[in-house]
Amino acid sequence: MKTLYLDLGEKSYPIYIGKGLLEQTAQLTKHIASKQVMIVTNTTVAKLYLDKVRDLLVDFTLAEVVLPDGEQYKTLDTINTIFTALLEARFERSCTLIALGGGVVGDMTGFAAASYQRGVNFIQIPTTLLSQVDSSVGGKTGVNHRLGKNMIGAFYQPKCVLIDVDTLDTLDDRQYSAGLAEVIKYALLGNADFLCYLQNKIDGLIDRDQDLITQIVYQSCFDKAEIVAQDELEAGKRALLNLGHTFGHAIENTLGYGVYLHGEAIAVGMLMAAKLSALEGFIGSHDVQQVKHLLQKANLPITINSKIRTQDFLNAMRVDKKTINGEIRLVLMQKLGQAFISNTYQTNNLKQIIKDFL
Amino acid sequence: MKTLYLDLGEKSYPIYIGKGLLEQTAQLTKHIASKQVMIVTNTTVAKLYLDKVRDLLVDFTLAEVVLPDGEQYKTLDTINTIFTALLEARFERSCTLIALGGGVVGDMTGFAAASYQRGVNFIQIPTTLLSQVDSSVGGKTGVNHRLGKNMIGAFYQPKCVLIDVDTLDTLDDRQYSAGLAEVIKYALLGNADFLCYLQNKIDGLIDRDQDLITQIVYQSCFDKAEIVAQDELEAGKRALLNLGHTFGHAIENTLGYGVYLHGEAIAVGMLMAAKLSALEGFIGSHDVQQVKHLLQKANLPITINSKIRTQDFLNAMRVDKKTINGEIRLVLMQKLGQAFISNTYQTNNLKQIIKDFL
Repeated sequence: MKTLYLDLGEKSYPIYIGKGLLEQTAQLTKHIASKQVMIVTNTTVAKLYLDKVRDLLVDFTLAEVVLPDGEQYKTLDTINTIFTALLEARFERSCTLIALGGGVVGDMTGFAAASYQRGVNFIQIPTTLLSQVDSSVGGKTGVNHRLGKNMIGAFYQPKCVLIDVDTLDTLDDRQYSAGLAEVIKYALLGNADFLCYLQNKIDGLIDRDQDLITQIVYQSCFDKAEIVAQDELEAGKRALLNLGHTFGHAIENTLGYGVYLHGEAIAVGMLMAAKLSALEGFIGSHDVQQVKHLLQKANLPITINSKIRTQDFLNAMRVDKKTINGEIRLVLMQKLGQAFISNTYQTNNLKQIIKDFL
Repeated sequence: MKTLYLDLGEKSYPIYIGKGLLEQTAQLTKHIASKQVMIVTNTTVAKLYLDKVRDLLVDFTLAEVVLPDGEQYKTLDTINTIFTALLEARFERSCTLIALGGGVVGDMTGFAAASYQRGVNFIQIPTTLLSQVDSSVGGKTGVNHRLGKNMIGAFYQPKCVLIDVDTLDTLDDRQYSAGLAEVIKYALLGNADFLCYLQNKIDGLIDRDQDLITQIVYQSCFDKAEIVAQDELEAGKRALLNLGHTFGHAIENTLGYGVYLHGEAIAVGMLMAAKLSALEGFIGSHDVQQVKHLLQKANLPITINSKIRTQDFLNAMRVDKKTINGEIRLVLMQKLGQAFISNTYQTNNLKQIIKDFL
């Protein structure tokens, strides 16, 4: 097992990464200060891992909430079902919530923990590659609104993140590839060495080589923890983690949540960002080809193919937390492995890219 | 105008108290860093003060949300209407929300500000006595759940609190008295001198003497700011501000929100706490009489008169953020002007008090 620490002063916490962690009671329970523990999961993950986590918690007063599976359920209404379950079980302010599942479960459980009685403890047990490498680390929690993705939420840090890479054994190929998109993101935005590594190891990763997987989960969490420690509330540098996301969120929002998995939308979004970066003269067409090639090798989509109008897509892009004075700020690539935030790109170039993809 | 500061490090902010503050543009606008400003108010307050505040904000991109008036609308659903309005107006993370109204408007606007795009700026302009002396100061925000009052929310501090005591001119007598309940609370929980003052001045206060009102608003905010500065997240001392509230919330919840105004429920709750304190041997019957007399002089209710069963009332009391291991912790009075948190009272005494009041 490897351990990383996200350094946030009093809010610091460990990230455990390894095999068989869901067999180790103390690893989880040493972070639970309360008697009352609620596991929040979804229908898919419950079948696979709920018994296992339940077995770790025999000494606690346990409650469970099993949510429907899918991004389309990441809403305030679903959060309210968690509140209702907490209140019906008479859970107190000292209680602990455990998010067992992917990014949607983690984001919602975290926001529920942030808001229940104005804040209770929570722990992340991410079971998808995407949540292990990205959403479980860093304290971004929340839900979608009909008019925009992740528009409601809180910065709220867990007490620990427990990543058992064995849980990826049950992850289907599509979800696994969606997770790889966020791994590739770290490489493209700030780690050229990691990009080389991924390009070299992508075949082994697609073959699900466990040592390679553990390594990329560790490297992704390492890179993310470093950025979040510098800028928890996204006043600056943290926005780089949004590479591909302004495009990606617009894809998810205009196509409807769930048509593309989040990671798939981000993959297309990163290619759009790369192409815009090339049009803007930062990177060359060879670089764009490299991005495209890696995404394809990772079995990720590189097209949208929809009937969305450019203007509608642009409007959806504008509903973004980085927007300032109606101006869409984008994470572009200075070169591969070095992203930056731009508000000086040519709007025509942006429109051209959108048109090419729609 | 008097100015107080709530000292919370980087989150510190001023509380302005005076007459005619809603005529002074700069007093408000110097705390707004954004172009986009949304005023959140309710149907009652909009008729009285929306134009006035709008006039202060001619240089801004203004949006307005007018909520229905009443505690029964303090729900997640209502919060969602604020989110929808923000998104429809394309409000960005730099925007500012202004709560113009009483405690319900302030609590909801604050929670919406805490959660919109994971946190935007907000300003409190409380227009009722209750919100001026209590809910606008200290950063407690949130909504009710069907199963419990204030069970969902966040600690989230405003950029400033602007208290124009002139707004109390339009407050009806019932609402005014409800505010006096929270003023009396500060005296009973920690300020014996202030209790004497209130006992001496209660007639003038009921006659709405403006100088007296300004003085009690100032003193209440002073006392609250001091306690909150010591214990923002209610790990200890801040719970004393809950004097009367465990009883009061149970009254509101079992009778239905809106039957008793919040301050009215707190008045009865404080008398219940006083009577339990007497049964427990801390204060004498003369002290209880003093509490009762002051509440009566303030035109506050001192009875419940309902058909609620003792057990149902007890169950409602248990849904409280102070509850530990199912045990109801209560703020009791060591003596008048000195409260403490108790979990060692006799359950039979508590039941006796509830029975006497139901």
